[in-house]
Amino acid sequence: MTRVQQIKQYIPWAQTPLIINAPMSGAATSKLAVAVTRAGGLGQIGFLDDKGMLSTELEKTKRQLSDFTVPNGTLPIGVGVIVFGSPVSHWLSLFAAYKPAVVWLSFGTSGEFQEWTTELRRVSPDTKIWVQVGSVAAALDTARACQPDALVLQGNDAGGHGHASGASIISLLPEVCDVLHEHRMSQIPLIAAGGIVDGRGVAAAIMLGAAGVVMGTRFLAAEETSLPREYREAIIDAVDGGVATVRSRVFDEIWGPSPWPELYDGRCLRNASYDDVAAGIPIQEVVRRFYLRLREGQDKGLDVKEAGSVWAGTGVGLVKKIEDAATIVCQVRLEAARRLENGISLGTL
Amino acid sequence: MTRVQQIKQYIPWAQTPLIINAPMSGAATSKLAVAVTRAGGLGQIGFLDDKGMLSTELEKTKRQLSDFTVPNGTLPIGVGVIVFGSPVSHWLSLFAAYKPAVVWLSFGTSGEFQEWTTELRRVSPDTKIWVQVGSVAAALDTARACQPDALVLQGNDAGGHGHASGASIISLLPEVCDVLHEHRMSQIPLIAAGGIVDGRGVAAAIMLGAAGVVMGTRFLAAEETSLPREYREAIIDAVDGGVATVRSRVFDEIWGPSPWPELYDGRCLRNASYDDVAAGIPIQEVVRRFYLRLREGQDKGLDVKEAGSVWAGTGVGLVKKIEDAATIVCQVRLEAARRLENGISLGTL
Repeated sequence: MTRVQQIKQYIPWAQTPLIINAPMSGAATSKLAVAVTRAGGLGQIGFLDDKGMLSTELEKTKRQLSDFTVPNGTLPIGVGVIVFGSPVSHWLSLFAAYKPAVVWLSFGTSGEFQEWTTELRRVSPDTKIWVQVGSVAAALDTARACQPDALVLQGNDAGGHGHASGASIISLLPEVCDVLHEHRMSQIPLIAAGGIVDGRGVAAAIMLGAAGVVMGTRFLAAEETSLPREYREAIIDAVDGGVATVRSRVFDEIWGPSPWPELYDGRCLRNASYDDVAAGIPIQEVVRRFYLRLREGQDKGLDVKEAGSVWAGTGVGLVKKIEDAATIVCQVRLEAARRLENGISLGTL
Repeated sequence: MTRVQQIKQYIPWAQTPLIINAPMSGAATSKLAVAVTRAGGLGQIGFLDDKGMLSTELEKTKRQLSDFTVPNGTLPIGVGVIVFGSPVSHWLSLFAAYKPAVVWLSFGTSGEFQEWTTELRRVSPDTKIWVQVGSVAAALDTARACQPDALVLQGNDAGGHGHASGASIISLLPEVCDVLHEHRMSQIPLIAAGGIVDGRGVAAAIMLGAAGVVMGTRFLAAEETSLPREYREAIIDAVDGGVATVRSRVFDEIWGPSPWPELYDGRCLRNASYDDVAAGIPIQEVVRRFYLRLREGQDKGLDVKEAGSVWAGTGVGLVKKIEDAATIVCQVRLEAARRLENGISLGTL
């Protein structure tokens, strides 16, 4: 059985190449998850650090997908979990009650991933565990520690939080693939994330060895994504994604001492706070200026790009219009399939 | 005529997908260039800032490829040029005398690229001009300024010098492709560089829209590459390429004030000097410690990884053995073609 077939067993509604929306905290709610799943992708809800709120989103999803039959009775979506600072015991009853098809664990140690995996498999044996990592070492450690049902490999192009220093999927995916093969774990499907925005990126990820592909930034422009208007406009306006976005810890530090482990930072649209830090201004003063801009912005209509943090990946320059999620999923899948069909002629003619 | 066909017109010996060795200064000499060209790729000599030395390498190439007939009489290789600090007038006679099939310009402003292009086309009309850039804005400016025969898009994964902040080819290539199309310059072929090490990376780059693919790090392990033994061993030993390598300006600053424009830094294997800078140690002290390590290293056999700068891309973890360049070129091309032929089934089955 191929790795794509493995995934199709528990996501039987999936059409391939498999498109998945990133579980963006706050932005990817039930509305987006339902739309992506209905379009033949894997829809996902991002983590919400309030159990009541996550419960509400899961309940909405369940109601809206009540006509959608999945043989093993799981809820046909994925749910993202930020593992650091989240004791599994606090959340377990929710996952036991809703039994999502996939739980996507991120930002933890291999020990924490192991604990989560063991507990989740105990309370919901049909839920599949995907774990997001950003390096070859983390992939190997995690594969050994918890035998995940898939590894999500997040490259440096990805928007939002991730490894502060790392490769893009161009070299990360093949190296993880080879290392897992060496250690007799090549049955684990790999999912690619970071910088993928359209059919070209999806086709490239498949060539690198991915069994499925995650898009975050592209879905920021989906009608179903929960996002302030100014944020979405900043995404549509941004060009030259590798220059328009930057990685830094300042996007967290601006709100007080960052709870994020040292290993991680985040990719956002470059803004005034980033420029302040780059100019060597001490963090206290950066924060003071930030609050000043925030107040001024609120007075004259928030300039989200200058004042706030607009999390986005390097693919942001390719996001040009607001569309519904089904259109995005179907169009990207079609473009990718067409490109994959013409593969050899693209390279030789 | 497709963009691949365009290139095949002036590189008639090329087999596709087209593999090109990066013009690594000092490491890519005539020996490597000749081997890559003979294997059906585009062999390239890296820039040497001594005109006599570059002349010697060109003469050697000419002699060694004297049996190799190219219809337009050009020398069937490419020559890399680092444009900043290199007045075109100083070098022109050399290019006029040897007429390389390709001159690859890098690290200049669009104005400098324009001057070089105009002069080169005047003295050697059959030489094709490729220009390396690292952002969408630079690609557009350069395309307008000098109508290059190809644009080489260097992603963030690349080893050696490059844009300090930028996207990988995953999003850079498609965005440049679209922007050139918008501005009616989509006839310009795009060449992908950065993080590509094997057939998977080549196939991915083709899916992204590349007409040819550059590998640097992979050729560091070619027998024909001019490299100290310790350097090559460090390349073979490195694993987890996104963690083993880092981008920084310290790798230049260690030798005195860096002549490199602010826009650029370089990717090397992470070493003690990088760690010193990361720990907040002032550059004078970093330099002092560096010379100390260098001296100690020389006493007990140079530990190149700790003392020197080993320029390498994130793909370094995929480079596992020393091979001759012809084997690398042919094997990578075959792997890529095989993958591209099976494209659609890889994504769907």
